Amino acid sequence: MTDYRAPVSDMRFVLENISELPKIAALPGYEDATPDLVEAVLEEAGKLAANLLAPLNQKGDEVGSVLENGVVRTPNGFAEAYRQYVEGGWNAVPFDPEFGGQGLPWAVGVAAQEMWNAANMSFALCPLLTQGAVELLQAHGSQEQKDTYLAKLISGSWTGTMNLTEPQAGTDVGAVRTRAVKEGDHWRISGQKIFITWGEHDVAENIVHMVLARTPDAPEGTRGLSLFLVPKFLPDSEGRPGKRNDLRCVSLEHKLGIKASPTCVMSFGDNEGAVGFLIGEELRGMEYMFTMMNNARLSVGVQGVAIADRAYQQALAYARQRIQGREFGSREGQLVPIIRHPDVRRMLMTMRALTEAARTLAYYTAAALDHSKANPDPAERERQTRDVLELLIPVTKAWCTDVGCEVASLGIQVHGGMGFIEETGAAQHYRDARITPIYEGTNGVQALDLISRKIMRHKGEPALRLLEQMRLTVSRLEELEGESFAAMRQGLREATDAFEEATNWLIENYQARPLEAAAGATPYLRLTGLLTGGWLLAKGAIAAAEKREQPGADAPFLDGKIATARFYADSILPEAVAAATATRRGSASALALEELAA
Amino acid sequence: MTDYRAPVSDMRFVLENISELPKIAALPGYEDATPDLVEAVLEEAGKLAANLLAPLNQKGDEVGSVLENGVVRTPNGFAEAYRQYVEGGWNAVPFDPEFGGQGLPWAVGVAAQEMWNAANMSFALCPLLTQGAVELLQAHGSQEQKDTYLAKLISGSWTGTMNLTEPQAGTDVGAVRTRAVKEGDHWRISGQKIFITWGEHDVAENIVHMVLARTPDAPEGTRGLSLFLVPKFLPDSEGRPGKRNDLRCVSLEHKLGIKASPTCVMSFGDNEGAVGFLIGEELRGMEYMFTMMNNARLSVGVQGVAIADRAYQQALAYARQRIQGREFGSREGQLVPIIRHPDVRRMLMTMRALTEAARTLAYYTAAALDHSKANPDPAERERQTRDVLELLIPVTKAWCTDVGCEVASLGIQVHGGMGFIEETGAAQHYRDARITPIYEGTNGVQALDLISRKIMRHKGEPALRLLEQMRLTVSRLEELEGESFAAMRQGLREATDAFEEATNWLIENYQARPLEAAAGATPYLRLTGLLTGGWLLAKGAIAAAEKREQPGADAPFLDGKIATARFYADSILPEAVAAATATRRGSASALALEELAA
Repeated sequence: MTDYRAPVSDMRFVLENISELPKIAALPGYEDATPDLVEAVLEEAGKLAANLLAPLNQKGDEVGSVLENGVVRTPNGFAEAYRQYVEGGWNAVPFDPEFGGQGLPWAVGVAAQEMWNAANMSFALCPLLTQGAVELLQAHGSQEQKDTYLAKLISGSWTGTMNLTEPQAGTDVGAVRTRAVKEGDHWRISGQKIFITWGEHDVAENIVHMVLARTPDAPEGTRGLSLFLVPKFLPDSEGRPGKRNDLRCVSLEHKLGIKASPTCVMSFGDNEGAVGFLIGEELRGMEYMFTMMNNARLSVGVQGVAIADRAYQQALAYARQRIQGREFGSREGQLVPIIRHPDVRRMLMTMRALTEAARTLAYYTAAALDHSKANPDPAERERQTRDVLELLIPVTKAWCTDVGCEVASLGIQVHGGMGFIEETGAAQHYRDARITPIYEGTNGVQALDLISRKIMRHKGEPALRLLEQMRLTVSRLEELEGESFAAMRQGLREATDAFEEATNWLIENYQARPLEAAAGATPYLRLTGLLTGGWLLAKGAIAAAEKREQPGADAPFLDGKIATARFYADSILPEAVAAATATRRGSASALALEELAA
Repeated sequence: MTDYRAPVSDMRFVLENISELPKIAALPGYEDATPDLVEAVLEEAGKLAANLLAPLNQKGDEVGSVLENGVVRTPNGFAEAYRQYVEGGWNAVPFDPEFGGQGLPWAVGVAAQEMWNAANMSFALCPLLTQGAVELLQAHGSQEQKDTYLAKLISGSWTGTMNLTEPQAGTDVGAVRTRAVKEGDHWRISGQKIFITWGEHDVAENIVHMVLARTPDAPEGTRGLSLFLVPKFLPDSEGRPGKRNDLRCVSLEHKLGIKASPTCVMSFGDNEGAVGFLIGEELRGMEYMFTMMNNARLSVGVQGVAIADRAYQQALAYARQRIQGREFGSREGQLVPIIRHPDVRRMLMTMRALTEAARTLAYYTAAALDHSKANPDPAERERQTRDVLELLIPVTKAWCTDVGCEVASLGIQVHGGMGFIEETGAAQHYRDARITPIYEGTNGVQALDLISRKIMRHKGEPALRLLEQMRLTVSRLEELEGESFAAMRQGLREATDAFEEATNWLIENYQARPLEAAAGATPYLRLTGLLTGGWLLAKGAIAAAEKREQPGADAPFLDGKIATARFYADSILPEAVAAATATRRGSASALALEELAA
């Protein structure tokens, strides 16, 4: 495993030009997000990620978290690293200053998140789950609940979890059977939950479980679910961890990856019933869950970016030092590092282009999250929410995580035989990445969400308005000279035309042939991701060309942006066209086989 | 992990219609390959694979092979399974009857190989390596060497290995440093080899290592390599394992997958030097290696098919039994198995179509191998060798293994969260599959082989003749009625046009811009694989339509062939067009970034 270096220059470029950070800093509440502060935050976060978290990653994978006598022990170093992470105030970056948060924009928050995840995805999952608990409490908790829990969760001295899944209730959350019975000012919770990330551990003094459960006489399905706060230790009168609650970790899963992250089977109420506190009103649990879902799905998309970048950095370092063969086409002369070989360069360029495209998409979506929360102009807030944030959340979650898997696989390939040997570290990224298309709503669920709630509920308009934005960029590209911009123009024009055709197909078929429309959701999402990534890279390239003219410009860096966007247009955007064709043509035939219908 | 069932009906369909088995059975030496015999062989092989090998697969992965005090212990059951495999005569299927082989065509042999690999890829690697040793000896061994070793290797009572790689000599085999010094009628070998599959084990009484080494005063590079036979135990005067040779397994690699297959670091000549016997003439080692390379690469391609089929079977079984959610679009009514959900059906259909396409490609190539060995007509033999076998070997190796990885990944996705849990078994296929694009020449090496040795050495003609064959099928499709055939026609016409453009690009640029041509090799191979798979599926669909008219036809099976070929044309062939575009446009820009050139 090679060192991790946070790509701060690239992050700043994307934040400035794609997230348009100056506009975010002009929103009420985000005034602190000056360029200087953001740079300082990213630099410091990068150091923590590189020096503290990254060195624990491979060791954590080797030993994993273990359950012994009901106690989960995380790998050596994790508890101390978490302590430093909390002490440095890193957990508080994007949260409400009223409870100790730093109140920085989500756009900056996701850049830091990318670093934690690139350095050590198993570790970063712990704060990622806490984030969900914070948002649920902020939005729906009582003042007393906020006073008791929020500052602890925001600082990270206590951690949070999400308890949705049960053996019979995965994607179908409505099948949850965990029960809650009222007892005075609290409830008694009993039932078993599975796949609970960081459900039990030794890195913080208390764990706050957010538990979906069914109250007596509640209706079936998701409408019958309520949300409960169930702490591992019940806070005493001073707010310190007090009596142990009736909940425990029964076992840990043996997983393909993220082995240091304890994935727990949790049992609530083996004895008298776990004490839980209702959040908000009864029967609104599922509705509340949606308030944290945008952020959670964005964060998982960021994990895809993170693991892709880590895999890319590792492959690049290996390709520079691994000596094998001679300069292409020559039988004589010096042996050269494999980065000189054209096919290796193409693999690295593909990894780089996909990673950067995924990053632009994630940070662009994060900026829309900030506008949706803080923009004082109702029309712009509405536009950012519906036409950008809501539309692109499922795309970011699904496409960026698919990119993470693809890039991690290419990372193995660059290493050749060494890539298959665990000591090298490339294989861990491949294993770790594979969970991201699954959790927080499978990528298939994201695709259905995209076409139904995000597009067709609004008669297709958000997709058509995204298309308009892209066509403005195509027009802008027409004003720029040079082969590279001509190539971007061509690639984007073809892909936007294909997107329009596929979107029209969707609009025409969604009501009349709903099964076919649903069968087309995954290629349609892939199309949207591939195209949006290429569009945002092109926007970055245009910005780079403008900056290139300014005195003191970092020409190699800016030229790299242009070259990467061009390669993407030449080599990857054609896949968007293929995905559009597959959406239109392949959705009926995907359902044709009777054997697969039974 | 679910059971494995050998897809005998599908194999027979492909053998009959794509490999054209009746034509192979008409070749001298292959007269025994009657439909009845082939069916009996496949049925019996399927039983062995399902009942003996498949049940050992997951356990073998969990415990792996281990090295203790210089002895490699394979997982429980492997030695006994290997004994039964040898006793049943299965190792001998495709080999020379003069030395106890069954003399069946390779087309039949690869079907059996697919079963072994689908059932237990770690196990199947052992005979796969023996196969290489058999072929080297058959082609280049002295009569005495053949008499001593061939019957043992063909029966499988002794196993074989290939010792090429050294730490500094991976893809660049010419960097081998292992030395051979003459001593009377034999040589003394010393050096270290890595990544030696089944280099040491406990399943057979002797191991015959084929070792590339450098003789004194040999020139540098591959031209200085000679091939040596280095047995673990030197045969005594009766041909039984005698004196222990000076070679040993130093360590085993910790790998991402195929954990039951011992991947050894081998040390030769720690003491007096390992006794080795020169095969053929000095300095021709690398040339000899090429004689077994076609078969070995074909076999690795078959591993891709095998793991894809295993992953598909497992995902299909899971999707049929896993109950989750209601019928798409309804909030009431029965809970249904997830196979009812459109997106899951699309994933399964994609897995099925890719797997079947890869199988047609591998079996078609295997048939060409039979013709290249046995066709008495020199013109046809030449055509089959150059225009089919040589051309499609790198495509089969690379594309079928890429398909194996892609399908195994989809297999995880169909399982949702359970796919990430090792107990389920889906993750093992994903890990096992990942080696296949790497070993036996990385897929990047295959792509370069395709464009240089296989196409441009013959001025592009083999590719253009393949195109002619495909266009005959397009014409034939025009005669058939119905939507499905119209869809195949459209998909194939677009993809063949794209293939022609990309091939012409290659022909125009190969001399003038060799680096760019090399950077286009991988997408060009992908294009060739995607298209050839779609073409062969369409040929199968045409045959199915013809059979459909015959009395007693198995209509659901044949309709399935047509539906699968059509889905492939609608949904997957567009990616061939994208790969063609990426070849033409993206190869210069892949090399544009200076940062990746240093």
